[in-house]
Amino acid sequence: MPADSVNHIPPSKQAGIAQPLVFAIEPHPLQLSLADLLNGETGEFDTRQFPDGESYLRVLSPVAGRSCLVIADLSRPNAKYLPLIFLLNTLRELGAASVGLIAPYLSYMRQDRRFMEGEAITSKIFAQDLSHHMDWLVTVDPHLHRYHALDEIYQVPSTVVQGAPALVQWLKEKKDLLLIGPDAESEQWVSEIAEQSSHPFVIGTKKRYGDRNVEIFLPDIDQYISHTAVIIDDVISSGHTVLECINTLKSKGIAHILCAAIHGIFAEGVDMDLMSAGLESLVTTNTIVHHTNGIDMAPLLVTAVEAFLSETTIQGGQS
Amino acid sequence: MPADSVNHIPPSKQAGIAQPLVFAIEPHPLQLSLADLLNGETGEFDTRQFPDGESYLRVLSPVAGRSCLVIADLSRPNAKYLPLIFLLNTLRELGAASVGLIAPYLSYMRQDRRFMEGEAITSKIFAQDLSHHMDWLVTVDPHLHRYHALDEIYQVPSTVVQGAPALVQWLKEKKDLLLIGPDAESEQWVSEIAEQSSHPFVIGTKKRYGDRNVEIFLPDIDQYISHTAVIIDDVISSGHTVLECINTLKSKGIAHILCAAIHGIFAEGVDMDLMSAGLESLVTTNTIVHHTNGIDMAPLLVTAVEAFLSETTIQGGQS
Repeated sequence: MPADSVNHIPPSKQAGIAQPLVFAIEPHPLQLSLADLLNGETGEFDTRQFPDGESYLRVLSPVAGRSCLVIADLSRPNAKYLPLIFLLNTLRELGAASVGLIAPYLSYMRQDRRFMEGEAITSKIFAQDLSHHMDWLVTVDPHLHRYHALDEIYQVPSTVVQGAPALVQWLKEKKDLLLIGPDAESEQWVSEIAEQSSHPFVIGTKKRYGDRNVEIFLPDIDQYISHTAVIIDDVISSGHTVLECINTLKSKGIAHILCAAIHGIFAEGVDMDLMSAGLESLVTTNTIVHHTNGIDMAPLLVTAVEAFLSETTIQGGQS
Repeated sequence: MPADSVNHIPPSKQAGIAQPLVFAIEPHPLQLSLADLLNGETGEFDTRQFPDGESYLRVLSPVAGRSCLVIADLSRPNAKYLPLIFLLNTLRELGAASVGLIAPYLSYMRQDRRFMEGEAITSKIFAQDLSHHMDWLVTVDPHLHRYHALDEIYQVPSTVVQGAPALVQWLKEKKDLLLIGPDAESEQWVSEIAEQSSHPFVIGTKKRYGDRNVEIFLPDIDQYISHTAVIIDDVISSGHTVLECINTLKSKGIAHILCAAIHGIFAEGVDMDLMSAGLESLVTTNTIVHHTNGIDMAPLLVTAVEAFLSETTIQGGQS
């Protein structure tokens, strides 16, 4: 984590512009910390659901002329989407200088082509629709698989913040670790984290037997038998990969097993299964609100957000 | 119901074009009946939710060059919205000649201005977003309050189908009725239905004491004491108005009370409360799928849909 991301002079102070307003579509710990780091304020709004299932929303903070940020964890996205675009558009209509979206977890990144004829390329449809409603986008480690950049599907400027530096910082504080990358896909990412945090690492091999049935093979790790194994993952969704990784580590006689991930979705409460399977500790960043959140992404997000706020200031000054 | 809406030659037969495909975002009785009346076919697609809450969708019917219709009852709209736009856009991407939306119940029509500062004008935001994803829109009795026409908020051609003729047809088959319009707002609508179905009617006066507390006053109806009262409503949502209307009718000694409505949303299972309160029968049209559906809107919808399909044919021929 670069030191200047914490000890900085916020552009709002530099330029003397009005403080940015930080909204959160649902309660989110990043709201307060970002408002604080940006020298801004939290934005307030009321929302409720009518008995017929439609949403009501009312912005309470005065937003005219101010830069507005909306934090929206987009995991489990379907029911959140309309309330989100209601908030984004209303901020614009009320005269916000700019409306940026901070999606610490960005949904609908997986289906990036038609694997079978007739499939909806949901990543593209979602991105195109969402692009209508915001001026810029900041997210953390989106699942860029066949896409090289968010620009391929999003029509607004975007910045991808890496979660790895936050993991590195967390890992550096611990001793006698062995980092575990569950499969070949994770090799480059985990090897860099290992190098930067000065820990040894191994990479597993994943064999998949259908949608939910996987097996993880690990190389010989006898020399690390007294180390604490830390399974490193970008996103835990169904949790099957991590679960199998725990089983393989146990079968190899490893006594202390942790898991650290950027995004903890934990479908169907799988975090409980992971703990029961033998994890000593399960830690995630606070992109998706969860009781396992132990790594704060605010210091890394603030730099990306400040860049967009500075642009707004410059554009505002030129107009 | 005009006879020619049933005994017609579908434009698809007239012009010899490919049969239209009728999809439904969720199972809906109008799918089969519209496919039949339009001499078309039902469109098939697979959809499921991943464990992480994102939707998967795959169109199975060959749609290239064909006119596609999607039926989507938009009551309780939030969780339905993304899957709907995934389907609409995928049909377009797969080469559909046109993609029309039949929303038998159209949501987000109520909030048509800022009653209080900062409120989201959800009707406008919803309409603008949905307009990106379809070529035309057909709906039944939307809540046009301060708007005069859907064109004020929707950017695609639209047709509003009236539910009243279907109610009239149903009422004509019954004898010794007294139609009840619950409040002044319903007067014009109920008086026309009464005239066309040749039944007497009275209009109530609604007094509102807060969000959920209403009282209905009715004029003297002693001369109709042996008639069956039929409460007529366009949409039953919380059901409080109908509930109070039942209580008032009972207090006036009416023994037989029915209720007929276009759209039955029935928030929080209020249909059970209405029956317990003393209704003999509760009947709705099949705009929103519900076990009270007893009035079929298909014959009235088909005319509106055919007009759009004819336009597609003409445009197709010109291009």
